[in-house]
Amino acid sequence: MLLDFKVLAVDKQTKARCGEIQLANCKIPTPVFMPVGTQGTIKTLTPEYLKETGTKIILCNAYHLCLRPGEKIIRHLGGLHKFMGWGGAIITDSGGYQVFSLTGLIKVSDNGVEFQSPIDGTRLFLTPERMTQIQNDIGADIIMAFDECVPYPCEQDRASVAVKRTLNWAERCLSAHKNKQQTLFGIVQGGVFKELRIECARNLTEINFEGYAIGGLSVGEGSFLMNEVLDYTVEYLPNDRPRYLMGVGFPTDILDAVERGIDMFDCVVPTRNGRNGCAFTSTGKIKILNSQYKEDAKPLDEMCGCYTCQNFTRAYLRHLFMANEILGLTLMSLHNIYYFQNLMQETRESIKKGAFKDFKTNFLLKQSETSKN
Amino acid sequence: MLLDFKVLAVDKQTKARCGEIQLANCKIPTPVFMPVGTQGTIKTLTPEYLKETGTKIILCNAYHLCLRPGEKIIRHLGGLHKFMGWGGAIITDSGGYQVFSLTGLIKVSDNGVEFQSPIDGTRLFLTPERMTQIQNDIGADIIMAFDECVPYPCEQDRASVAVKRTLNWAERCLSAHKNKQQTLFGIVQGGVFKELRIECARNLTEINFEGYAIGGLSVGEGSFLMNEVLDYTVEYLPNDRPRYLMGVGFPTDILDAVERGIDMFDCVVPTRNGRNGCAFTSTGKIKILNSQYKEDAKPLDEMCGCYTCQNFTRAYLRHLFMANEILGLTLMSLHNIYYFQNLMQETRESIKKGAFKDFKTNFLLKQSETSKN
Repeated sequence: MLLDFKVLAVDKQTKARCGEIQLANCKIPTPVFMPVGTQGTIKTLTPEYLKETGTKIILCNAYHLCLRPGEKIIRHLGGLHKFMGWGGAIITDSGGYQVFSLTGLIKVSDNGVEFQSPIDGTRLFLTPERMTQIQNDIGADIIMAFDECVPYPCEQDRASVAVKRTLNWAERCLSAHKNKQQTLFGIVQGGVFKELRIECARNLTEINFEGYAIGGLSVGEGSFLMNEVLDYTVEYLPNDRPRYLMGVGFPTDILDAVERGIDMFDCVVPTRNGRNGCAFTSTGKIKILNSQYKEDAKPLDEMCGCYTCQNFTRAYLRHLFMANEILGLTLMSLHNIYYFQNLMQETRESIKKGAFKDFKTNFLLKQSETSKN
Repeated sequence: MLLDFKVLAVDKQTKARCGEIQLANCKIPTPVFMPVGTQGTIKTLTPEYLKETGTKIILCNAYHLCLRPGEKIIRHLGGLHKFMGWGGAIITDSGGYQVFSLTGLIKVSDNGVEFQSPIDGTRLFLTPERMTQIQNDIGADIIMAFDECVPYPCEQDRASVAVKRTLNWAERCLSAHKNKQQTLFGIVQGGVFKELRIECARNLTEINFEGYAIGGLSVGEGSFLMNEVLDYTVEYLPNDRPRYLMGVGFPTDILDAVERGIDMFDCVVPTRNGRNGCAFTSTGKIKILNSQYKEDAKPLDEMCGCYTCQNFTRAYLRHLFMANEILGLTLMSLHNIYYFQNLMQETRESIKKGAFKDFKTNFLLKQSETSKN
């Protein structure tokens, strides 16, 4: 499907921009953060609470969902939105990243990837055609091309082979894509090699996708190299299509990427850190098990409007974590996602007002206030 | 505090009765089911969802809360209602049952109980005075006397000693009780020995409590013996005070006890079974991991109005359990508590209409429909 994407404002000092993606069920303001619901659930949260965080779109993993419960079951039950009771939008990752990072014995060829199911040991063969069909069945609003993701560090030769394969697979995904209510995005690979990234971006643009993701980053190369890759890669992506930086990240990484023209983000950080007892706040991170919060009657963040901060103290949250109570995981995840969504909203507003740089500087300054914790 | 308890209707064929307990924050219709929030949280549920199940009052454990986070912290933070963000009523168990069932090395004397903290190994000494002070600090609406609970089976001599101690401790709890905004209940012990139960009930009534619990049941004696104990014990408890059967139970046990004049119940069954993948429904129990639910598009219970049944299929719930996703525990717990609260509401209505016996018979018949699962 042709994607209805509008750029509404572009920052004068940076490449930061703010826009809107119109999908079947909802309008997505960009830059947008997409919480990760790998297995068809944002861990510990009901769709109702997820909606209350301001989340409009989530990322699920076609790779995990095809292994369990299987894409045919999801299709039989009316598609992923209905299956998981989520009224917002969904994007599915094709599984390139998962196949290369989560499984042990894999065999990659130009045709596809052979590996063992981590669930039951079955030998599986994933091809661009198969991953597209799986995503067609699952029925997300946006689906991703199947790509080859290389680790960091990685020899240029190996990264070059992966780029060629990724381009070939991207074309095969486009041909295989049958569910025209869904929008297909291409993925730029190329490691930290400028000529490879540019080659990949140029060729993908020629194939012509409705949106472009930058994959294979945030895999250990560090913020400096990541930002460098973004700087030159974004130049070769069309202005009238959304740009999605996959798997990123921490608030500062997100702001760095927004500054470089990125529109979409996904990351497990707010939920995973929440479950590990780490809360993001307007003055820095809080590790809730720290004994200093034992009798602390304050909410996690006095500036926060989330359900957790409106109803519970740090002392209670600490108690829940000390006592291994699941409600602690739920309340921290909810808060952290709300925090990320609020950050994105403030980011969008600052871009509209032409004040993104000030906003970012101010944000970084405030973060240091409790960074000693 | 004097307890405002009214009996509104008594069944003509049985001792079942329906009434109302007026507490500071809310009116509790009886017979009432109280979900268990041992550590100051109904496992996996936010207070908001708990309220949506129709829950008006919950049971928390003073024993666990004094070990962690400590009653002084709860008091410092404004009492347990505020600490856990629960706007309904709370009853705290004194810990008699926990001390005798959960800890290994204990030394009981007439003065109190000496044992090791299961959390950090500290030697602790709990007395009736100390457990009353702890409950005064925690600040629940209703608190329980500290009792000695004997196991099943148990020699009559040992049960007799425990009854004498329980009576002596009950008087000491009453003298020690300082927070007059709270109501103190006495607990009838006596194992399965008629003369001991009657002795205990008579003497407690003479001491004069605002409500009476029957403890030491549902510890392995089985439904037949439990009902027998209820039959003769309830006779010796005043009609104008609420009667609370501690730690019970399954729906059929609850209806048996309602029939014998019991007004209050608490049990971990809806939450624990929910976390174990077992749902209560109007046609019997469902074990959600059963492969027959793999593609089942129906809700857990088509007759149920809970959030889970209004939004999710059995297939999705099964997927969450297969994938070890916490949301599954939350949704099943929520459904089960709703089921129990709905059962209690139907029970109350049937008593008001003078149709309790028919309601019970009908309930038991419907239960068998999916009992093969």
